[in-house]
Amino acid sequence: MRSEFSTVFRPAHMSIVLLSFFCFNVFALKSQLLSRRGVLDFTSEKGVAITYKTLYYEQKIDHFGFLEDGTFKQRYLVSEQHWLHKGGPILFYTGNEGDITWFCNNTGFMWDVAEELGAMLVFAEHRYYGESMPFGVDSYSDSKHLNYLTSEQALADFAVLIRELKRTVVGAEESPVIAIGGSYGGMLSAWMRMKYPNVVVGFLVVYSRALAASAPIWQFPNMVPCGNFYKIVTEDFARSGLKCDVNIRRSWKAIDNISSTDDGLQWLSREFSLCFPLKKQDSAGFKSWLQETWVNLAMVDYPYEANFLQPLPRWPIQVVCKYLHLDATVSDYQLLQGISQAVKVYYNYTGNTACLNTSQTATGNLGLIGWYYQACTEMVMPMCTDGVQDMFEPQEWNFQAFSDECNNLFGVRPRLDWAHIVYGGFDISSHSNIVFSNGGLDPWSGGGVTQSISASLVAIVIPDGAHHLDLRFNNEYDPQSVLSARALEVDYFKHWILQAKKAP
Amino acid sequence: MRSEFSTVFRPAHMSIVLLSFFCFNVFALKSQLLSRRGVLDFTSEKGVAITYKTLYYEQKIDHFGFLEDGTFKQRYLVSEQHWLHKGGPILFYTGNEGDITWFCNNTGFMWDVAEELGAMLVFAEHRYYGESMPFGVDSYSDSKHLNYLTSEQALADFAVLIRELKRTVVGAEESPVIAIGGSYGGMLSAWMRMKYPNVVVGFLVVYSRALAASAPIWQFPNMVPCGNFYKIVTEDFARSGLKCDVNIRRSWKAIDNISSTDDGLQWLSREFSLCFPLKKQDSAGFKSWLQETWVNLAMVDYPYEANFLQPLPRWPIQVVCKYLHLDATVSDYQLLQGISQAVKVYYNYTGNTACLNTSQTATGNLGLIGWYYQACTEMVMPMCTDGVQDMFEPQEWNFQAFSDECNNLFGVRPRLDWAHIVYGGFDISSHSNIVFSNGGLDPWSGGGVTQSISASLVAIVIPDGAHHLDLRFNNEYDPQSVLSARALEVDYFKHWILQAKKAP
Repeated sequence: MRSEFSTVFRPAHMSIVLLSFFCFNVFALKSQLLSRRGVLDFTSEKGVAITYKTLYYEQKIDHFGFLEDGTFKQRYLVSEQHWLHKGGPILFYTGNEGDITWFCNNTGFMWDVAEELGAMLVFAEHRYYGESMPFGVDSYSDSKHLNYLTSEQALADFAVLIRELKRTVVGAEESPVIAIGGSYGGMLSAWMRMKYPNVVVGFLVVYSRALAASAPIWQFPNMVPCGNFYKIVTEDFARSGLKCDVNIRRSWKAIDNISSTDDGLQWLSREFSLCFPLKKQDSAGFKSWLQETWVNLAMVDYPYEANFLQPLPRWPIQVVCKYLHLDATVSDYQLLQGISQAVKVYYNYTGNTACLNTSQTATGNLGLIGWYYQACTEMVMPMCTDGVQDMFEPQEWNFQAFSDECNNLFGVRPRLDWAHIVYGGFDISSHSNIVFSNGGLDPWSGGGVTQSISASLVAIVIPDGAHHLDLRFNNEYDPQSVLSARALEVDYFKHWILQAKKAP
Repeated sequence: MRSEFSTVFRPAHMSIVLLSFFCFNVFALKSQLLSRRGVLDFTSEKGVAITYKTLYYEQKIDHFGFLEDGTFKQRYLVSEQHWLHKGGPILFYTGNEGDITWFCNNTGFMWDVAEELGAMLVFAEHRYYGESMPFGVDSYSDSKHLNYLTSEQALADFAVLIRELKRTVVGAEESPVIAIGGSYGGMLSAWMRMKYPNVVVGFLVVYSRALAASAPIWQFPNMVPCGNFYKIVTEDFARSGLKCDVNIRRSWKAIDNISSTDDGLQWLSREFSLCFPLKKQDSAGFKSWLQETWVNLAMVDYPYEANFLQPLPRWPIQVVCKYLHLDATVSDYQLLQGISQAVKVYYNYTGNTACLNTSQTATGNLGLIGWYYQACTEMVMPMCTDGVQDMFEPQEWNFQAFSDECNNLFGVRPRLDWAHIVYGGFDISSHSNIVFSNGGLDPWSGGGVTQSISASLVAIVIPDGAHHLDLRFNNEYDPQSVLSARALEVDYFKHWILQAKKAP
């Protein structure tokens, strides 16, 4: 089986936020953000039948205060096709920052294992994304309406929804619940198990466990080095072709040189087939766009053709690097010709792209503004580059500047320590039954749990895996490492289900 | 050593709220609530030196949203007298609904064991009580200002404060933290361990564990029978004197009979030495006041003289019951003479009380309005009576009526299921390291964890104990059961401290 779709982790863009904040003024950024919001525009090409009911549950807008007593409709998708009703498990996808149907279509692993486990599949949408808007069209209108966009509220939504399912779906009350998620959704899965380890109906005991795929739960201030992320991106390029990282590192200066003249700007615009000719003040933005492109490639460096952010060949970074095997003696123009061809692997693999738009790098299924707001409040994930251990221009992590930009943009300030405090930081050893899977190629593994903490807090590393490859459909080109990882994950699921049934 | 002070659990009053709501109109209740707020008016008579620093920490008003970015000063008390600085444990009292100095003075157990454990003592005040007012004098002005009075916000305050202590107090970063609390404070201790099991600074691993004394974490809707509470109150009276409960049960009808005439009302007012003569419409309130008095006696039926809500003799219910050993043949007047004498044991043990005020039953150190608000939002604790298994007039639990009253009073509606969902209901088996202690005489044990759940979720029952007797100072009249309980608790503390030191 092959998947034509993939999912992408929004925090990459947040890292861009962090960096972009220093390049764009607030309004420029704001309009850029707005232009990126798009609609779902893909259709499934899979052979596997993905059929589900679309349902809505009335959630409280504010779980943690009683003044705001309004409700909104949370969307969730349910597939009972393979569910062994009485006590069959529920695999519960803890939706992340985007349209839940997109995650549903891109989490082939759940569809692949549903029959074997006799499982019900539930995909719950995260508030403020997709159709689950607490205040309808006003949800994003100002910081007052955005106030209920937090991970704690999202987790509470999931807990309330699970309880409701167990109360109302005949046969579900004894069903063990396994939370599954990738990326930010994986963080939510892990936190779900940490904060709501038990979901109970009456006197029946049921359990939640979690599979957190590519979940950088430690990518917070004063935890992992801020350079981890871009270092891994760089390693992906370094191992995919000779001098590949070296030439990307050289490219920034070459862009500075060439973009310093009007002729040079014209040449760049032509060479990169840009939709809108570059102006002098655009060169920082142009470099950010390239940087984001390399990051996206690192996240989705899958072993087979896939169409996620963009249609791509198998092992796309290897293809990209073919154009970057250049000697140190080449001119700036020759170097940037190579970069241009490399970038077009990402933006024009199909050959149908008329021109490249530097305000777009990825699918419109993700809720960028929402994620930016989350990054500007709880999800403070420091990123930095030094140009030595990574192939990017040096950029320090500057919390104060970041905070000021957040305040300008949303009227809120991030809280440096809060995620650390509320989710326990490094020491999560008193929790249990979580599998953390990580891709060796995935830059987000730099903030993930990559070593097992106890017998029931297990880390899996998939050396050849990019961003949550294990959550994707099985594919004939899958490396052995991801097949083994999935098999191990299913073993844990079976063990947890058995454990739940044995419990008093 | 003897303690002259005791602490009391506010939810008793909530049960009164529930019942009173049907007797008083909203404004009457409101003024009654207001009249009850008092100031700290006791001084320590203990031999044990209670000395501490009073400190304040700047807390966010809203931990779960970013629009309200204001702060307030949370009061906390610290005693380092016996602390073995480097790695000595921190016993952290999770303050409940009242002035923290009062809890500090009434939690003798912590002062008694500090030296043996080489422990730092910290008593953290709960927001909206004592001096820790998020909006100063406006904190209680309306539901907008009350919006941040929730257990989740209080737990977050504690977590943030612990992290701050570990960061700023030299030697504290390696100190294991043990959360301790009684009553609602005990619920908070247990929940603290469940929601924030680990508090981490840098790469150092430290642990919190919890002692939850007399914590009715299961006194929520659809959990324990709503009649448990008053049944235990009744049992306390039944076992303390022949026909004691029977005559209290008979008293309600006698009050109805006598209060039906003006002469009867005059007689009652005289006989009970009431400060304000009873009027016809007062008879329901008069009965509520008596009921609350019996409840308070059950909570503080300690084996020695103590002064908490009121100065009382040792085993006060036995003293009360001496006046209620009456035959079925006595007249209504004779019966109520007995009741009057019994009640005066509670209100006039010193002989200095000029008259009895039916709008007061207890100390002013508790924040009644705050607790009422909490009962009207998260802390929905169903109570009911049937007059058969208990000695009270039958009163069903009526959620809708309760919700309507809350809405009238505060402009909020309680959420029936929320506490259950957020704190896991019955199934807390995946948590660890919590000791739940319960008093066999304590009506709140009806909603407590009285059977061990696992090797590290341990229940202790103290058959001769009233409301968190184990948290009080050692006393020569302490029954063996409470001495054993305290010894066992200290054993667990030592085990947890050792365990934390062994951890990676």
